[in-house]
Amino acid sequence: MIVEILATGNEVVEGDIVNSNASWLAQRMRERGCEVRFHTAVPDDEALIDEALRRAVARADLVLVTGGLGPTVDDLTLEVAARTFHRPLQVDEPSLKRIRDFFAALGRTLTPNQEKQAQLPQGSTTLLNDVGTAPGAYWREGETGLAFFPGVPKEMQRMFEKRFLPLIEPYLGQETRLRKVLRCFGMPEGQMDQLLRPLQNAEREIEGAKVGFRVRFPTLDVRLQVADLDAARAQRRLETATAKVKAALEAVVFGEDDLSLEEAVVQIFNDRRLKLAVAESCTGGLLASLITDVPGASLCFLEGAVTYSNQAKVKRLGVSEKTLEEHGAVSSEVALEMAQGIRRTSGADFGVGITGIAGPSGGSETKPVGTVHIAVAHPGGEWEQKFFFPFDRPRFKQITAAAALDRVRRILLEKPTQ
Amino acid sequence: MIVEILATGNEVVEGDIVNSNASWLAQRMRERGCEVRFHTAVPDDEALIDEALRRAVARADLVLVTGGLGPTVDDLTLEVAARTFHRPLQVDEPSLKRIRDFFAALGRTLTPNQEKQAQLPQGSTTLLNDVGTAPGAYWREGETGLAFFPGVPKEMQRMFEKRFLPLIEPYLGQETRLRKVLRCFGMPEGQMDQLLRPLQNAEREIEGAKVGFRVRFPTLDVRLQVADLDAARAQRRLETATAKVKAALEAVVFGEDDLSLEEAVVQIFNDRRLKLAVAESCTGGLLASLITDVPGASLCFLEGAVTYSNQAKVKRLGVSEKTLEEHGAVSSEVALEMAQGIRRTSGADFGVGITGIAGPSGGSETKPVGTVHIAVAHPGGEWEQKFFFPFDRPRFKQITAAAALDRVRRILLEKPTQ
Repeated sequence: MIVEILATGNEVVEGDIVNSNASWLAQRMRERGCEVRFHTAVPDDEALIDEALRRAVARADLVLVTGGLGPTVDDLTLEVAARTFHRPLQVDEPSLKRIRDFFAALGRTLTPNQEKQAQLPQGSTTLLNDVGTAPGAYWREGETGLAFFPGVPKEMQRMFEKRFLPLIEPYLGQETRLRKVLRCFGMPEGQMDQLLRPLQNAEREIEGAKVGFRVRFPTLDVRLQVADLDAARAQRRLETATAKVKAALEAVVFGEDDLSLEEAVVQIFNDRRLKLAVAESCTGGLLASLITDVPGASLCFLEGAVTYSNQAKVKRLGVSEKTLEEHGAVSSEVALEMAQGIRRTSGADFGVGITGIAGPSGGSETKPVGTVHIAVAHPGGEWEQKFFFPFDRPRFKQITAAAALDRVRRILLEKPTQ
Repeated sequence: MIVEILATGNEVVEGDIVNSNASWLAQRMRERGCEVRFHTAVPDDEALIDEALRRAVARADLVLVTGGLGPTVDDLTLEVAARTFHRPLQVDEPSLKRIRDFFAALGRTLTPNQEKQAQLPQGSTTLLNDVGTAPGAYWREGETGLAFFPGVPKEMQRMFEKRFLPLIEPYLGQETRLRKVLRCFGMPEGQMDQLLRPLQNAEREIEGAKVGFRVRFPTLDVRLQVADLDAARAQRRLETATAKVKAALEAVVFGEDDLSLEEAVVQIFNDRRLKLAVAESCTGGLLASLITDVPGASLCFLEGAVTYSNQAKVKRLGVSEKTLEEHGAVSSEVALEMAQGIRRTSGADFGVGITGIAGPSGGSETKPVGTVHIAVAHPGGEWEQKFFFPFDRPRFKQITAAAALDRVRRILLEKPTQ
């Protein structure tokens, strides 16, 4: 099934917003075995929308349209579609009631332009909007299916999943397409590629699963994709390929699908009922913030100390002034004393210490911008390493925080009894 | 001048990446007075690229193509364009030399597919790639200009600004289009709209400048846009409109264009040589991380304490156990003691305390998820307020951190002598 995704709206065409709806819809349709062949975007202009709709219906089996369903004069999409395909607009009573109820609940009066949203082309199936007010619509124009969604991503996504997919399920192809994403950290793409090459055939497949890489800075994904008419065989192939890749990459893989590095780490800490505390200088609280992004982090995360000044390092963590003077704030010794200090004073099982130079200024010849020391103090001992991450300030903070999380994870993997 | 932006690549059409190149290019062309009318994306497929190129040249005055210039077999764009427009590929010697030098510097051997990148259609002007290896190309096909850029955003953007714009500058329109963005926080969009209405004419213009709003969570932008044949008049109109909007919105406006709230705050602290320290519970280090995202934050930011556990609040900040017992960790009293505690122990001029319930669990009937107390202790006194931010965990953290920053900013504005 060939799919076209059409966005209407000045804000898209003029670049005020990025058209993330197109990629979201493309992914969903692709998972269902469809071939997405065209993305198109046109302004809020009658003639251009009319032309784009005609062309899309002529060349695709399914056209997904986003945007232009709202109450304002710019919202033209369904009005134009009604004229293009000779389907007069008619009031959809359930939608009108929903809009009326919505405004009544807010204690506001319904204006005529709000009522306009409830008018849908003749012969269309209403796609209820469970999040906002404007309903969508679906109908078949000859052999081609046409679906209209709001431009607001949350409304569109909910309508697509809950209202639209059940409608078109019967028309979708029989081929099962599955994808597995392996989340990785700590090895360059080229080196991972070399490790996986011996497993691949000439088409770069492992057990019939296509292999691809994708950078999601600071992490990297290995993506495995299988397409098969036999659903059970597709599943089997993907599982075998996944196991082979995991065995080859070992500890580089920290999780699957959408798992973040911080989620992986919090999960291990909570499973083992261990406690964590972190002392940060150059990452400035980002490590603590990533950890506390994870629901349930309060079970394992005791505290963080963002000791930006030397004084704070001494006072909060007990870093010795002598060490600071002799080795400088950015040194192995200070990183270790920070890790030990936060572990001791917080009573956590694991203490992390980070000190480095985020830039853009503050570097020297021996300690250039991008230099960073990461240390971990834990029940089994201590670990410390110097890294060089020559990135801009935000990316420096991101990769440094990820490197610290990853090291904690690897220590936990190596000493599973802790 | 009518512009079409065409992306080629499976990764775009299948939704693996969001087509941010299209919005970036659209903004740039729009600022130059062009009318961007179409965005299109097609897969790495000869026939579809050929068709899309023909259509674009037929309906636009300028076609900007991104993607498909690399070394792999999937990179077809210029090969197809060469055939479509009968312009045989020829080796571009300067580009070939650049690619050879690049690989020599890495100590790697040049493979034939790498050399392929230096082949450009006959009669085209090379667009040098200052960041990567693949050059772009520009030529005129009849009345229509055609430009080809790499898909990697950094390479594309640099090539566009440095190599392409100077080439087409003479063909661009004479109208000057200017935009001013006023960055706002602390007032709902509807209320701001009401304040600005009396300044606007029927076309929603102030002094000939169009007014628009755009949410950039947790902040809000007011955008003013002017188009005028007279450049000086455009400038004057925009300045007058900007002044009027600022006068109407007062302290809600924290800055212009791309300034972030944390940059605005760090700037004031550094200008006045004041020092800042923060104590966070539910924001988990995000406030400290935002502040330390700003280059130069080390001049004013002394330290942050992420006191997630009650024990840490007592030990690090001197919050009294009695207060915790009587009022609970999420209370005005604890927020104030946190702010006072971090101010006292760090020696900063301003101390911030934040305590709340980020969710998804941990709420109660009297203190539901989304409840948060923010306190500021400063040379002029103390401030504390309870907020209710019923958002998901990441957005709760963002808006809470922004509300704290904004309050510090407003206190500094009200007491300019501090």
